[in-house]
Amino acid sequence: MLKKPLILVTNDDGITAPGIRALIEVMNTIGDVVVVAPDSPQSGMGHAITINSTLYVEKVTIDKGKQIEYSCSGTPADCIKLGVREILDRRPDICVSGINHGSNSSINVIYSGTMSAAIEAGIEDIPSIGFSLCDYNWSANFDACKTYVKTITEQVLQHGLAKGVVLNVNFPKLDKKEIKGIKICRQARANWEEKFDKRKNPQGRDYYWLTGKFVNLDDGKDTDEWALENGYVSVVPIQFDLTAHHCIQHLNSWDFNEK
Amino acid sequence: MLKKPLILVTNDDGITAPGIRALIEVMNTIGDVVVVAPDSPQSGMGHAITINSTLYVEKVTIDKGKQIEYSCSGTPADCIKLGVREILDRRPDICVSGINHGSNSSINVIYSGTMSAAIEAGIEDIPSIGFSLCDYNWSANFDACKTYVKTITEQVLQHGLAKGVVLNVNFPKLDKKEIKGIKICRQARANWEEKFDKRKNPQGRDYYWLTGKFVNLDDGKDTDEWALENGYVSVVPIQFDLTAHHCIQHLNSWDFNEK
Repeated sequence: MLKKPLILVTNDDGITAPGIRALIEVMNTIGDVVVVAPDSPQSGMGHAITINSTLYVEKVTIDKGKQIEYSCSGTPADCIKLGVREILDRRPDICVSGINHGSNSSINVIYSGTMSAAIEAGIEDIPSIGFSLCDYNWSANFDACKTYVKTITEQVLQHGLAKGVVLNVNFPKLDKKEIKGIKICRQARANWEEKFDKRKNPQGRDYYWLTGKFVNLDDGKDTDEWALENGYVSVVPIQFDLTAHHCIQHLNSWDFNEK
Repeated sequence: MLKKPLILVTNDDGITAPGIRALIEVMNTIGDVVVVAPDSPQSGMGHAITINSTLYVEKVTIDKGKQIEYSCSGTPADCIKLGVREILDRRPDICVSGINHGSNSSINVIYSGTMSAAIEAGIEDIPSIGFSLCDYNWSANFDACKTYVKTITEQVLQHGLAKGVVLNVNFPKLDKKEIKGIKICRQARANWEEKFDKRKNPQGRDYYWLTGKFVNLDDGKDTDEWALENGYVSVVPIQFDLTAHHCIQHLNSWDFNEK
């Protein structure tokens, strides 16, 4: 590639999170980097967009890297929309989101702000990847992720991605020498068994905290959960055409006439 | 069915919205209804959940119907989690969400709080349906939807739904006599061409409003957009396994070795 690729970077933990700093560091070795990321943590925002409120964007300098950075008051999906439509003067060659502090494997993809940004870029027909490390700590160590982030990003730049497909990449919480390599996977069937922690506020009113336990319901060895538990980096191609095509024929046999 | 079905109802426009009132009215003719819905509008919230803040739930009476109602400070997905795990003493037989004021067809499913609630119930293995009317007005007329809502809900109660599948139902903005019937569809390929409306606040600081134009990129006659434009109620089976299975083999041919 004669011209350096233009790379749009975002995340959902906020622009100052160590995970996005590690991602920017790697992207600076690949191309020209523009960051548009939330000014505060947005975890669990799913694919939220800001339609009933205003958006602020500010050019900022967070570290000494050569990237250009904008901090945004909106959600990860807002950041992509703003980056593509308002801030960048040409279409990015790739969009990367993360590195998230915490897993976005299996069903977590549904709740993930990191992945919503990657999907938003995918909807805009921009090849895109969400990266997450299975470690919720703010001081998580992203070193082991870096060479994999670089390799996967370069492969996507080289091959492109099929229309309507983005990549969901998760890293196990392991040292680099313990990681066995990359596995292409499917999303494991899993859910959260929620418990609500009920408390009383100082005024005596009940309130709840959402807590929960992740439950893997899938014993397949071709899943992202299996890969992560067994020391691999999981790469799941995901799509935003949610149609359950296999159900259409069956539904056509139902009787929808008024009774 | 000897015992009446237990129906959990929610939405994303807020518990007082005319759309959910119409939905409750229909559900009261089918079973025992418990409403757990947001205390304020949550449109565009995608699949957001409340993990860093507290949740309040209050038993309320909004109208004279026989339903039991709870108003919740959280998102539509929170309402389902709270309903299933905390409020109801047995699993609901079905969950219905809506009727949304505005379309959730094609790509809008991704941004939809209405559909996130339906998907959340699906993750809990509860048959579930999201209903939306293609009319953003608060004073939209839901009369034409009612018999279809009833028929579709009864069909789902009778047949169940395949594991991992929920229904996304959209109604055209038409009088009942103009609606041609129900079409089982796939999600149309579409996107939003966003424009940001840039303004200055009274302090002279720039801010943006997100605006946009919906663009249908799909000329298939088997899509929800085609159905709605041609006077049909669209029913799309959707899934929350986002794996793009057709891409796995190709990705396995990439070279992920370190360079």
